[in-house]
Amino acid sequence: MLPMREISKAPEDHTHLTIDARHSPIATISPGERVAVETTDYLGDILSESTRLGDVWGTDRLDDNINPVTGPIRVDSVSPGDALAVEIEEIELPDRGVINIFPGFGGLEPSIGDLAPPSDPETVFCDIEDGTVTYPREDEQDVSIPAHPQVGTIGTAEKHEGRYSVKPHENGGNMDCREVTEGNTLYLPVDVDGGYLFLGDCHAAQGDGEICGISVEVPATVTLRVDTVSDADLSWPRIESDDEIMSVAAARPAEDAVKFAYLDLIEWLVDDYGFDETEAYHLCSAAGRVRLAQVVNPKFTVAAGFPKEFL
Amino acid sequence: MLPMREISKAPEDHTHLTIDARHSPIATISPGERVAVETTDYLGDILSESTRLGDVWGTDRLDDNINPVTGPIRVDSVSPGDALAVEIEEIELPDRGVINIFPGFGGLEPSIGDLAPPSDPETVFCDIEDGTVTYPREDEQDVSIPAHPQVGTIGTAEKHEGRYSVKPHENGGNMDCREVTEGNTLYLPVDVDGGYLFLGDCHAAQGDGEICGISVEVPATVTLRVDTVSDADLSWPRIESDDEIMSVAAARPAEDAVKFAYLDLIEWLVDDYGFDETEAYHLCSAAGRVRLAQVVNPKFTVAAGFPKEFL
Amino acid sequence: MLPMREISKAPEDHTHLTIDARHSPIATISPGERVAVETTDYLGDILSESTRLGDVWGTDRLDDNINPVTGPIRVDSVSPGDALAVEIEEIELPDRGVINIFPGFGGLEPSIGDLAPPSDPETVFCDIEDGTVTYPREDEQDVSIPAHPQVGTIGTAEKHEGRYSVKPHENGGNMDCREVTEGNTLYLPVDVDGGYLFLGDCHAAQGDGEICGISVEVPATVTLRVDTVSDADLSWPRIESDDEIMSVAAARPAEDAVKFAYLDLIEWLVDDYGFDETEAYHLCSAAGRVRLAQVVNPKFTVAAGFPKEFL
Amino acid sequence: MLPMREISKAPEDHTHLTIDARHSPIATISPGERVAVETTDYLGDILSESTRLGDVWGTDRLDDNINPVTGPIRVDSVSPGDALAVEIEEIELPDRGVINIFPGFGGLEPSIGDLAPPSDPETVFCDIEDGTVTYPREDEQDVSIPAHPQVGTIGTAEKHEGRYSVKPHENGGNMDCREVTEGNTLYLPVDVDGGYLFLGDCHAAQGDGEICGISVEVPATVTLRVDTVSDADLSWPRIESDDEIMSVAAARPAEDAVKFAYLDLIEWLVDDYGFDETEAYHLCSAAGRVRLAQVVNPKFTVAAGFPKEFL
Repeated sequence: MLPMREISKAPEDHTHLTIDARHSPIATISPGERVAVETTDYLGDILSESTRLGDVWGTDRLDDNINPVTGPIRVDSVSPGDALAVEIEEIELPDRGVINIFPGFGGLEPSIGDLAPPSDPETVFCDIEDGTVTYPREDEQDVSIPAHPQVGTIGTAEKHEGRYSVKPHENGGNMDCREVTEGNTLYLPVDVDGGYLFLGDCHAAQGDGEICGISVEVPATVTLRVDTVSDADLSWPRIESDDEIMSVAAARPAEDAVKFAYLDLIEWLVDDYGFDETEAYHLCSAAGRVRLAQVVNPKFTVAAGFPKEFL
Repeated sequence: MLPMREISKAPEDHTHLTIDARHSPIATISPGERVAVETTDYLGDILSESTRLGDVWGTDRLDDNINPVTGPIRVDSVSPGDALAVEIEEIELPDRGVINIFPGFGGLEPSIGDLAPPSDPETVFCDIEDGTVTYPREDEQDVSIPAHPQVGTIGTAEKHEGRYSVKPHENGGNMDCREVTEGNTLYLPVDVDGGYLFLGDCHAAQGDGEICGISVEVPATVTLRVDTVSDADLSWPRIESDDEIMSVAAARPAEDAVKFAYLDLIEWLVDDYGFDETEAYHLCSAAGRVRLAQVVNPKFTVAAGFPKEFL
Repeated sequence: MLPMREISKAPEDHTHLTIDARHSPIATISPGERVAVETTDYLGDILSESTRLGDVWGTDRLDDNINPVTGPIRVDSVSPGDALAVEIEEIELPDRGVINIFPGFGGLEPSIGDLAPPSDPETVFCDIEDGTVTYPREDEQDVSIPAHPQVGTIGTAEKHEGRYSVKPHENGGNMDCREVTEGNTLYLPVDVDGGYLFLGDCHAAQGDGEICGISVEVPATVTLRVDTVSDADLSWPRIESDDEIMSVAAARPAEDAVKFAYLDLIEWLVDDYGFDETEAYHLCSAAGRVRLAQVVNPKFTVAAGFPKEFL
Repeated sequence: MLPMREISKAPEDHTHLTIDARHSPIATISPGERVAVETTDYLGDILSESTRLGDVWGTDRLDDNINPVTGPIRVDSVSPGDALAVEIEEIELPDRGVINIFPGFGGLEPSIGDLAPPSDPETVFCDIEDGTVTYPREDEQDVSIPAHPQVGTIGTAEKHEGRYSVKPHENGGNMDCREVTEGNTLYLPVDVDGGYLFLGDCHAAQGDGEICGISVEVPATVTLRVDTVSDADLSWPRIESDDEIMSVAAARPAEDAVKFAYLDLIEWLVDDYGFDETEAYHLCSAAGRVRLAQVVNPKFTVAAGFPKEFL
């Protein structure tokens, strides 16, 4: 196994609220190199038994800690038009995660809600042990869910724009897609020299759609092997698992995300697997698989996949 | 096993283009009775080797055969506010299905397309044998997909409105949801005395989203056991499989369908499984599963489910 | 001036909750004939000083009176593919109208609202006198708005489907468009022999978007002159005023309504005014006018217009 | 009249593709000061009789000139939470503007269009003289439209994010709203010390919705008087004309923009005009006015207004 570089989240300038090429690289790596990246949870690790969401609601302390991402990681010799091939080797979970309801956020909050009272900012801590997430209930049996470690936010910098890390977009970002998980490889478009990779916002478990807006949120150490693909010219992030090829798109409304993802998947089937456009379109309609990642972030994310066994 | 009533699709008045309580019942059954219902494919079985979609494009023959449904089946002693519990025992597939592209229809057609030329009305026939659907390719290896029999359109009549069978809605209709399959039980709201059940539009295989607008379409004989639930007061169709409980909603844009489905699922978890609202909302966000049924019909359909093993 | 037929709303079978060709005509008129049609307000005239919305909330009395329309009026010798040309001669307002907030309805209600408490069903009566609508305020100065009489719901029957009158669609229906007003001519597609015209839901004043879901609602007597256009083959309703030609489309999301309306307007400019498609597209982008009718009904309505002075 | 500072667009660093607080101010002004700001047209003035859109299509020259904005202009003593009050005194039009169709852009292009051929990149120049814009036609009568000068893109910097100037958002940006015109005052939220104002993308004429994506586009010199409002705490841009108060919101889908705009307008009516929330909601539903600005940019823009004469 390759040697590994460790990247700490600790120094203040190692995490940012934007995915932006103007931040200074916190590490420069060579193609093929392995890195273990420390990430904060989606609120910069500020919640604890003594600090609940309600305690920091409406304060600068909360506003300055919305979805920090660790980075940028600069990758040597990668240029605009190339892609990063990010193999997710391991996501090391802590022994506790947190889930909330955020007033004014989440799928079942009124999206335009000043005329309706907000939900309370509930804060619930879940134990994580032996691959199981336990959601505690008072005077009732707890609920056990299999842990499914996942990197919620991961992306590369755009040429001009410095984007909030809460947004998903053509270069990744806050995709909240459960397929960004151990064993899978994520391909990300490169728009600037060095790529400028950022990541954070890991989840121990997430439902499709992430309907309340929050998953079982954790700080985590993520081990990646970052390689490059020349002239990949990707329109959207792509994921490859043992079983499936997947295109990930973000748009609003959600059906546009589905369409963009399938359009990219059809292009992939045509370019790399020898189908013509009509065949690929038919086969996606007959056998495509959609993972609805989330419908709560500024744009909604969808992965459209095709089983490798049919290819 | 219960005796079974056979319902033919043959007489002209046994199929309709609308789900409407003013059509005369073609059969009246008792709660608990089994029926084997013949259905046409989504174009009234008019396509064949000698009749391709292009041959009937723009003609009355096509217009008069868009998604005919067999029915209505009247169920004795069921009243508004009750539900039908429709157990799908078997969907008997033929040895051939058809898939098309429809000019002006499908997710990747311009939805507003007069300024763009339509796609060609492709017509491809797929063999179905031993549980496998074979998509043929010229001079290339055919593609084999496991058959997954499914009832595309099934629903009950509304009180006042006579609805096109191509539309999905609160009483079912054109849901195109792969969970309406053998072994599962579909619960449908009842709005009129007798329920008035219609079904048709079976699929041998369908991808999530049904992105080109068409699945591998088949005529089929569907064996159902129809029971009733008193005072169920359902807002949306619900499905129960061995592993999951699911709520099915239809809306546009797609995120609204996701929200309506989760809202109903949360209500289900609260009413029948003892969770409070916040717990149910959290758990759906941490472990809910979404099946994107289709994003091509007038409203889009989504099933939100929760694994029974966590309950 | 032509003689005029009077059509009462009084007999029970003169109003319906659906626009449906299977209702029996309450009058049959000749092309060019004038009719004075009595309409109920949007709740079948059930509200009064002694009956407020809160008093009937959740009752059958309310459910059975949602947006009744007077009709159908059959027009001799009109056939599918023709259009009705409905000149709105006069909308005779009463001396009082009503405006409400409906729990769970309206643009600023949570559209998916079970988790949020509904607004109260407010009921406010406004005096209408000398062309002015007065909105009363307690201990504050009343607000005076110029009356702008308008037919909220007007449409023709569809071939197969019996549609709820609360819905707007290709044949008109609940458009809530302030251009359906005195002096303007509304063109409606004809899908069945006789056209089958229905109308109701008049407004004394309405804001763009009808944001709370309700206008200043009135019963009214509407004087129409109904003529026919052969082989008009309309895709959407069209309106002609002294100053403007307008296409009215209904869709969801709202931008699709804008696009469908402009697409029809461009077709109109090309067919009747000699522009080529690119010119018409450019000119609509440089000088088109959009009236946002409503964003609260099941589909949203938009009128896209072009000033006649530029033609 | 106050003295005036002139701000040239000429030096390369006086225009930018992003609205970003990290660009160096090109001028610092005092509250109340007047400035005459030169702006380029929406393509950095690169089109001419010898350079049509087709000539630069797909080149870096085009990509590097998409909607440049002049700025930032720093305003002394303005702090986060304040607002800029930007009075548009004059928009000096040139004698020629340009309108295009952009392949893959515009309301009637397929939004997801790789499967459909793009429109041609048409380039049409319009003369502007004596307040009239003339759209030329070959062998047919030209079309004359009254000029309506307007600033298409104007906004202040966000705290963290560096936003593309083609996007509209909470701080203004590419609103394409015809009410940003001579004589009106635009109020913009301030998120950073100094406000950091940028502007460009002027139009000589624009239709509602800007349906082909392009207006009659011009370089222009815009004379502004920039004042400040302390602790305004605006959620969205607001506009005040002689006749109307207006809130401008940007969202996707378009109905959300309508809702956000009305929500802000209701807040304005409640805070500054003494209405209670229900009254304001009722009155907007009975007499509000909506200007659909555009449905082609990444978010759609809408202005919701209320006539001052009713206040």
